[in-house]
Amino acid sequence: MTHPGNVLVGQSGGPTAVINQTLIGVVEAALAAPGAGRVLGAINGIQGILDGRLCDFADEDRDRFEVVAQTPSSALLSVRLKPDDDICRRILDRCRQLDVRYFFYIGGNDTAETTHIISRMAEESGYDLRCFHCPKTIDNDLCVTDHCPGYGSAARWVIQALMADNLDNRSLGGVKIDIVMGRDAGWLTAASALARVHADDGPHLIYLPEVDFSLERFVADVEAVYRRLGRCVVAVSEGIHGPERAAIVDSAEIDSHGNRQLSGSGALGDVLAGAVKRHLAAVMPGSAHRVRADTFGYVQRCFPGVISPVDAAEARQVGRDAVAAAWAGDQPSGSIALRREPGPSYQATTFVTPLATVAKVTKPFPTAWTTPSGNDVVMEQFDPYLRPLLGALPEIGHLRLRPIDIAPESA
Amino acid sequence: MTHPGNVLVGQSGGPTAVINQTLIGVVEAALAAPGAGRVLGAINGIQGILDGRLCDFADEDRDRFEVVAQTPSSALLSVRLKPDDDICRRILDRCRQLDVRYFFYIGGNDTAETTHIISRMAEESGYDLRCFHCPKTIDNDLCVTDHCPGYGSAARWVIQALMADNLDNRSLGGVKIDIVMGRDAGWLTAASALARVHADDGPHLIYLPEVDFSLERFVADVEAVYRRLGRCVVAVSEGIHGPERAAIVDSAEIDSHGNRQLSGSGALGDVLAGAVKRHLAAVMPGSAHRVRADTFGYVQRCFPGVISPVDAAEARQVGRDAVAAAWAGDQPSGSIALRREPGPSYQATTFVTPLATVAKVTKPFPTAWTTPSGNDVVMEQFDPYLRPLLGALPEIGHLRLRPIDIAPESA
Repeated sequence: MTHPGNVLVGQSGGPTAVINQTLIGVVEAALAAPGAGRVLGAINGIQGILDGRLCDFADEDRDRFEVVAQTPSSALLSVRLKPDDDICRRILDRCRQLDVRYFFYIGGNDTAETTHIISRMAEESGYDLRCFHCPKTIDNDLCVTDHCPGYGSAARWVIQALMADNLDNRSLGGVKIDIVMGRDAGWLTAASALARVHADDGPHLIYLPEVDFSLERFVADVEAVYRRLGRCVVAVSEGIHGPERAAIVDSAEIDSHGNRQLSGSGALGDVLAGAVKRHLAAVMPGSAHRVRADTFGYVQRCFPGVISPVDAAEARQVGRDAVAAAWAGDQPSGSIALRREPGPSYQATTFVTPLATVAKVTKPFPTAWTTPSGNDVVMEQFDPYLRPLLGALPEIGHLRLRPIDIAPESA
Repeated sequence: MTHPGNVLVGQSGGPTAVINQTLIGVVEAALAAPGAGRVLGAINGIQGILDGRLCDFADEDRDRFEVVAQTPSSALLSVRLKPDDDICRRILDRCRQLDVRYFFYIGGNDTAETTHIISRMAEESGYDLRCFHCPKTIDNDLCVTDHCPGYGSAARWVIQALMADNLDNRSLGGVKIDIVMGRDAGWLTAASALARVHADDGPHLIYLPEVDFSLERFVADVEAVYRRLGRCVVAVSEGIHGPERAAIVDSAEIDSHGNRQLSGSGALGDVLAGAVKRHLAAVMPGSAHRVRADTFGYVQRCFPGVISPVDAAEARQVGRDAVAAAWAGDQPSGSIALRREPGPSYQATTFVTPLATVAKVTKPFPTAWTTPSGNDVVMEQFDPYLRPLLGALPEIGHLRLRPIDIAPESA
């Protein structure tokens, strides 16, 4: 029996903490698949296919696969390239040249779109190429799937970070603003809500891009919490905007920082902290108000050592099941999605959804899961959704701090 | 036998991940000390003593002590108050009022100074008060002690963060600048060096406040790495400055200790990223250069779930040994310090050093441990110093990525 063709796998877009679980899931299953040929890796995704930079997993050390799987960020290296039809045609030519009959591409909705174009071109030209997309994104904004591999681990990081900042803010007071990743979808910022363990724990306010942002309402919200508790912790999505997507950081402020992008810049946090400082100085004059902002930045998406075991296991399964679906052959292409099974304990299984249902489109945080105030999430809805994806969180202990009776100082 | 007096413990300054290990170490040892009276906690440090807000550890749930110990950030809440003689006199009066004969204060060198003043006043007025300082600081800049409780855990966080950013940068290229805490001392920024596991791993450049910073040299350093590797990861201390402490960023906010606010703002990172962007656009025109900066901010000092077990155990021991020293009675006051014992495997023991040797002074990162280039640390010196303090780090796995031979694309 001749082999049914070679296998090509690549990774695309921003990294996650578990993207290599999916890669190793694909590779191990492909190496074990009946009659499989070579299992090739595209170095830097489709850029490597264009440039002819591919590796062969037969050259790799299988004893290291488990460590690679546990290491965050694309082990095959990544790319941010939105291919046009010409590029996709060249990729297809390369597949023909190398007798690649199975193509697996791990990434977000742009990656699904690339996979979709290549699949369609192959079909149109009569070349038998099975094309499967494996989802990954910390943003959790892919359609159809219950949730995305990569989200649980990023959410875990954000929760632990908010636990840290809540404990810090609790001990020293003041206002702390944390900017969380998520350009269009608030899933990751919303996760911060699960940092709350005890009464009065922050984040006390949560702002998502799905709710139009008002700077005046924001500073009034912060003032109200600050007056009540003497402190306030706020989680803000980097993607917040006013009505009709009006930017919060105006061009003057952009110029002074020399930056326009949302991540990798402290501009939004500095603007919000400045607004709170000015507001508190006006409405509560006479005392100093400690206001700080931090922008969590890139570490939240691939921090080693803060990985959800559930997320890791599911990411691995998605890779395995992509190979199984390709080998089953009843669908020439598709994206692997997760379904939450009914029952008292959490369990998820995979299924195949057409690439067109995932490509390009995004899934926002549900409006019904945000409070009418627009500054929090509905815990009854969101907590049961997110908690099973995280693994066990660190336990947080407080003292009671019940003051004893003491006579006042003698004058 | 009447009790020898009551015990008062407080926490001061910025939090660490293990500051409650020390607290619980003090409390458990004091509760078990022969003939001890009440064990009281100062809520918000000396501010609580002044305000009469103290708790009694007899009211606390001992079954929760272990969880409190494992929780980052001052469980007794903290304070940033630099007391004058009048305030110290009022604190001493309160100790008299409550028959406090043992005072333990957990904090940095400002806290040691406060402890020192109170101790001296007690002695001058003939009031028998044993005053012991327990060190904590993520900055690792206290004198006498080999290292500070709190540093190992913060270093572990910074290392894992740089591992994350190195993996991210490796997969997508470009220049990534990370701003690390440390106002005057580069210990925490230097820790980033231990994120390097494989050849070409970042951080490729490390800038400490102990070496005068030059923006021109900096952009040239980055350019050289970027030309060589196509990418560059940089760790920069928030405290860098030009000759004669010239500021890199002109935005000053002074706290009650006379320190400029460096954390809680993305300004320094934005300035450095902007300079690199302009430089690369000038010297390597014609292609887009991806330059990003993140300021790690407050989460690095008390992230739950990223705690060094060595640091936690030593912090606990420091608390216990402070009580032992106070009860031993051969010294009326002191600061607990760590000594690294000679021998093939790491071991540290505590000893008592006079408060005056710790108060106010700081220990910079040794000049001999920075490279002549001024942009890295000497690993032969620093690695054996830091590594035993961290616990086991996450394992990082790379693929070989050896490209296979492929014929060029057909035209």
